Amino acid sequence: MSGTVVRNIHRADAGAIEALGRQGVATVHEAQGRTGLMQAYMRPVWRGARIAGSAITALCHPGDNWMIHVACEVLKKGDILVVACSSENSDGGFGELLATSLKALGAKGVILDIGCRDAAEISEMKFPVWSRAISAKGTVKASIGSVNVPVVCAGVNVKPGDVIVADDDGVVVVDRKQASEIARLGAEREKKEAGSRARLQKGELGLDIYDMRKALADKGLKYIDGPLD
Amino acid sequence: MSGTVVRNIHRADAGAIEALGRQGVATVHEAQGRTGLMQAYMRPVWRGARIAGSAITALCHPGDNWMIHVACEVLKKGDILVVACSSENSDGGFGELLATSLKALGAKGVILDIGCRDAAEISEMKFPVWSRAISAKGTVKASIGSVNVPVVCAGVNVKPGDVIVADDDGVVVVDRKQASEIARLGAEREKKEAGSRARLQKGELGLDIYDMRKALADKGLKYIDGPLD
Amino acid sequence: MSGTVVRNIHRADAGAIEALGRQGVATVHEAQGRTGLMQAYMRPVWRGARIAGSAITALCHPGDNWMIHVACEVLKKGDILVVACSSENSDGGFGELLATSLKALGAKGVILDIGCRDAAEISEMKFPVWSRAISAKGTVKASIGSVNVPVVCAGVNVKPGDVIVADDDGVVVVDRKQASEIARLGAEREKKEAGSRARLQKGELGLDIYDMRKALADKGLKYIDGPLD
Amino acid sequence: MSGTVVRNIHRADAGAIEALGRQGVATVHEAQGRTGLMQAYMRPVWRGARIAGSAITALCHPGDNWMIHVACEVLKKGDILVVACSSENSDGGFGELLATSLKALGAKGVILDIGCRDAAEISEMKFPVWSRAISAKGTVKASIGSVNVPVVCAGVNVKPGDVIVADDDGVVVVDRKQASEIARLGAEREKKEAGSRARLQKGELGLDIYDMRKALADKGLKYIDGPLD
Amino acid sequence: MSGTVVRNIHRADAGAIEALGRQGVATVHEAQGRTGLMQAYMRPVWRGARIAGSAITALCHPGDNWMIHVACEVLKKGDILVVACSSENSDGGFGELLATSLKALGAKGVILDIGCRDAAEISEMKFPVWSRAISAKGTVKASIGSVNVPVVCAGVNVKPGDVIVADDDGVVVVDRKQASEIARLGAEREKKEAGSRARLQKGELGLDIYDMRKALADKGLKYIDGPLD
Amino acid sequence: MSGTVVRNIHRADAGAIEALGRQGVATVHEAQGRTGLMQAYMRPVWRGARIAGSAITALCHPGDNWMIHVACEVLKKGDILVVACSSENSDGGFGELLATSLKALGAKGVILDIGCRDAAEISEMKFPVWSRAISAKGTVKASIGSVNVPVVCAGVNVKPGDVIVADDDGVVVVDRKQASEIARLGAEREKKEAGSRARLQKGELGLDIYDMRKALADKGLKYIDGPLD
Repeated sequence: MSGTVVRNIHRADAGAIEALGRQGVATVHEAQGRTGLMQAYMRPVWRGARIAGSAITALCHPGDNWMIHVACEVLKKGDILVVACSSENSDGGFGELLATSLKALGAKGVILDIGCRDAAEISEMKFPVWSRAISAKGTVKASIGSVNVPVVCAGVNVKPGDVIVADDDGVVVVDRKQASEIARLGAEREKKEAGSRARLQKGELGLDIYDMRKALADKGLKYIDGPLD
Repeated sequence: MSGTVVRNIHRADAGAIEALGRQGVATVHEAQGRTGLMQAYMRPVWRGARIAGSAITALCHPGDNWMIHVACEVLKKGDILVVACSSENSDGGFGELLATSLKALGAKGVILDIGCRDAAEISEMKFPVWSRAISAKGTVKASIGSVNVPVVCAGVNVKPGDVIVADDDGVVVVDRKQASEIARLGAEREKKEAGSRARLQKGELGLDIYDMRKALADKGLKYIDGPLD
Repeated sequence: MSGTVVRNIHRADAGAIEALGRQGVATVHEAQGRTGLMQAYMRPVWRGARIAGSAITALCHPGDNWMIHVACEVLKKGDILVVACSSENSDGGFGELLATSLKALGAKGVILDIGCRDAAEISEMKFPVWSRAISAKGTVKASIGSVNVPVVCAGVNVKPGDVIVADDDGVVVVDRKQASEIARLGAEREKKEAGSRARLQKGELGLDIYDMRKALADKGLKYIDGPLD
Repeated sequence: MSGTVVRNIHRADAGAIEALGRQGVATVHEAQGRTGLMQAYMRPVWRGARIAGSAITALCHPGDNWMIHVACEVLKKGDILVVACSSENSDGGFGELLATSLKALGAKGVILDIGCRDAAEISEMKFPVWSRAISAKGTVKASIGSVNVPVVCAGVNVKPGDVIVADDDGVVVVDRKQASEIARLGAEREKKEAGSRARLQKGELGLDIYDMRKALADKGLKYIDGPLD
Repeated sequence: MSGTVVRNIHRADAGAIEALGRQGVATVHEAQGRTGLMQAYMRPVWRGARIAGSAITALCHPGDNWMIHVACEVLKKGDILVVACSSENSDGGFGELLATSLKALGAKGVILDIGCRDAAEISEMKFPVWSRAISAKGTVKASIGSVNVPVVCAGVNVKPGDVIVADDDGVVVVDRKQASEIARLGAEREKKEAGSRARLQKGELGLDIYDMRKALADKGLKYIDGPLD
Repeated sequence: MSGTVVRNIHRADAGAIEALGRQGVATVHEAQGRTGLMQAYMRPVWRGARIAGSAITALCHPGDNWMIHVACEVLKKGDILVVACSSENSDGGFGELLATSLKALGAKGVILDIGCRDAAEISEMKFPVWSRAISAKGTVKASIGSVNVPVVCAGVNVKPGDVIVADDDGVVVVDRKQASEIARLGAEREKKEAGSRARLQKGELGLDIYDMRKALADKGLKYIDGPLD
């Protein structure tokens, strides 16, 4: 499907997106059974943002950012642009001008499996960007790719309309049709964690809170008084 | 010794620990003959902390953080938890709940040769963490490792009770029995550096302060007036 | 030319240096036809600086920073020290004492294809440093290299007197003799980008501003209405 | 779908599989528009094999090879086992005993986004294996994953039944339903390349065979007689 | 202990060394509870060797191979030289001349956490070398390190006299005092594996041989008939 | 100079090229003062070749091999094609068809700071290729670069006409004008090494042959009888 732009996509339930964004990457990733997490090299250009939105996907070629411009036209307010590349490449195919454009169009942020440039300006604009590198290396507009086709971005298969959640921990992808269910599971998890947190703050041990002692003994863990030296 | 927990360990002299913490990683590393430095991939989750304390060691398996919970029980106020892994792994086996627990137990910080998650929350808590990666990837509690055995963490052999010093430069390990001597040598070094600093600030050259000209000439260094082009 | 120090070099036009510094790495890199950019692993020790100056080059050996001291003597106010290494090495051959010296001597900053230590102190001093790593690993003064010879630093050939521009995006090198021309082209580019920026801010599409629709169609890009699922 | 095994899958046309295997990775990758190629870190354990078959997928967890055993039961003669991992991991979850089992069951080979051990024995057996690393690191059987679900392996989305082609160049994945069409395009490409090859062997230039001179001139390429020095 | 050479060391039982060498890296690593394996970047310069011997350790500095010469004097017939480096470095500090020397002195092989040069000549000599890289980069003889002190080599703590086992899978280290016990456990493991191998060759499944079905069901693994598409 | 092809270049003395080729990478690299060595990631596609020739340089863009075709026209019998890329890229821009062309034109080999495909076919043809990766990833012909301009290839500045020497150890570059002098120094070095080799083969120690004992003692190296445990 190289050379194809799909104009319209289904998006996930707005309430689910909002809930997932509040929960954040670590909770959502756990809630959906520890799947969907992009590789750890995806880092925020500036620390402190937490966003969620529907994925608009763009598949580019190395050193070529043409499809990002094409993607801008089909993007709607609240969407997140996800840029994949047909081979490993860190060139800076996204910078302040494209950030200006996306901000004006209402995008919540950008996920780049390529490089980002104009890091200082983008940090000042507070436009949320996650990328595999910061690089000023310019790109051409010579090869066509696709927009709104499934792409593999930083190790995860992303379909247009899937929910993207991103924060200082990285980026996680939630299947569009499961967004509400994952949001529900995430909320449950948060509630359970709040209970654990309160007990941990008082100095109780995880060993007791999570009832681990028997399982450890069954596995053969042995205690020695020590010191050994 | 897989599957062993040593409850009690010897700790280094409290005064030495405090002195080493003030001196910081670069000075301590030099003071002990440029040894004991963990590999440069160990980075603070947030910048600005400088800590020192006695090492409690935990040896985990890839994608498994069970032993961190076990280590919490033997950790004492002022200790630093050092987490090694039996193979290269960046999964996020340490997050905000464990940070909450360790903080409540009085730990000064954590050194992770695995990944850290909940980076935003941990930065806000100002709980000091150094790790090889930031990753939300969750871990299981399925395989037992050991606590308070010698481990290799980021390229350095760490014995329980060794002194850990960590700051924005990375992490250095000091043998428990040599802690006082290294602290003394570090203090000497600081004094000497203060003298050099004052002279450098006035614009004197290192060539003269450190008396390098003859050695350079002996090695055959030649000067050309130039310009050559 | 190992073992050679060239005392005097030609420097670029001061006005050109100043202009290039204002334009920043991404603009300058584009202005000179997307050449001269150092590899993306070169990162600032602290974020927010933007500098430009004439390159003083030092070629060191792995684990050895002797030539940095030698370079200090030939450096003039406003210069930038560029440190290359004869093989890949991340040891911390540059720290707070050398930063103190260079600051006193009027250097604008340092570009290190080796490691930097004392990251906290250097950040506090606000002395601009770009490096391939942060590492406290100390270095020796045992092998002579050269000063003010052409070096390859982070993938770019740097001749003494070339203009170095560095900011949060990385480091770019401009040939001394082309500095004024590149500064002129950079200014043109900035002007053109200001026009695009104003239109993008209003929500116009790059597709229209840059007149891309015909070229995309010629390449065979196809649009589908969708949604496909 | 963690924890799910799909027993039966559709497989691609046997003739198409055979044709794709003869064409090899580079040709097939081009024939399908330069898509589907796994990342270049996937290397054969021994050089010289070229295989094609239907993908049986297994999704494992780091340091855990349990699902490979589960996959053996659903694998049929001629299939290729594709092992993905829920996070980046190079542990040696596949060795000579599993190779013996797969060979006995008629598998054509294995694609591992984890490590392979017993490299000497597997090379001697001539059982084809591609992996991201060679590592003796043993694995546990503690966490369940899935078999015959879509997985991302070395950067490519692989669905059960897709055609895997692997040789010294790496590994490429062909959508099951497109296998015959890609095989046809690959054959066309081979024919065309045979013609080019004959002309190149006689010393004709690609510039002429592929008629590039005008396009290069249009792009602005300039010739200088030289020498310049 | 920088700057120290220990002339004499204890060596492991010769029978144990011989047995461990026959068993090979993967078996020995498993026999000692999956510990002691060097990182996977350690690769043989040529494929096909399998050796075991007592470790003579040398701690060098980056770009400096002086201590290898020092180690030659204390090495005895049958020993294996283990070279660690005080920081990450791939320079070619070992080549054909040193290989000639070591071969003449009766060394069984060399383990280098630095680079190896003269790869062609060393392969022709059939002198076994494992290294982190092949590199012609020459080294100096300027800084003293130590010989026969404990070192961390490729992530494993190696004490002089420990048994080194190396083959195409990598390098594993066995504590000298446990060598006989590990050899015994390795032999048991081999015996057990021989039984499994015979059954696997007949097409029996690991699921049955290792009796995994109940454990998988207990963990919640579900089977679906499929196909799903 | 992007978009420039220099048709004619000066070449080094044929006798010097031949001598350097016989000496090989490690000797030549030492003979010219340990400079000019490409980074260690440059590996031969097949082991066993040793070549030397004059460099024809091509500067390509990521994912684009157009300039290789352009370079073919200016290449003469005995030359070696050196391909650099304007940013880090491993796509397979060179394969069996280009190898066929270069072989027909009399090229001695190719040095690629990009990827190589058709590894099996090229190995069978015995056409010498060094590359940063093996990758089947196809490339486009969309952006013009330059031919016979100075390029940085794998960390070394290569000028057209410089001598390239390549073997299993990697690739080294010799300045054209210094080729004869370096060949002479290499011959001297070989003679000297032959003497050392003969003594080492008899079991003499490098410590004595190279007269190191006093220098080691002066540096403070201490001997302890041991064993220490």
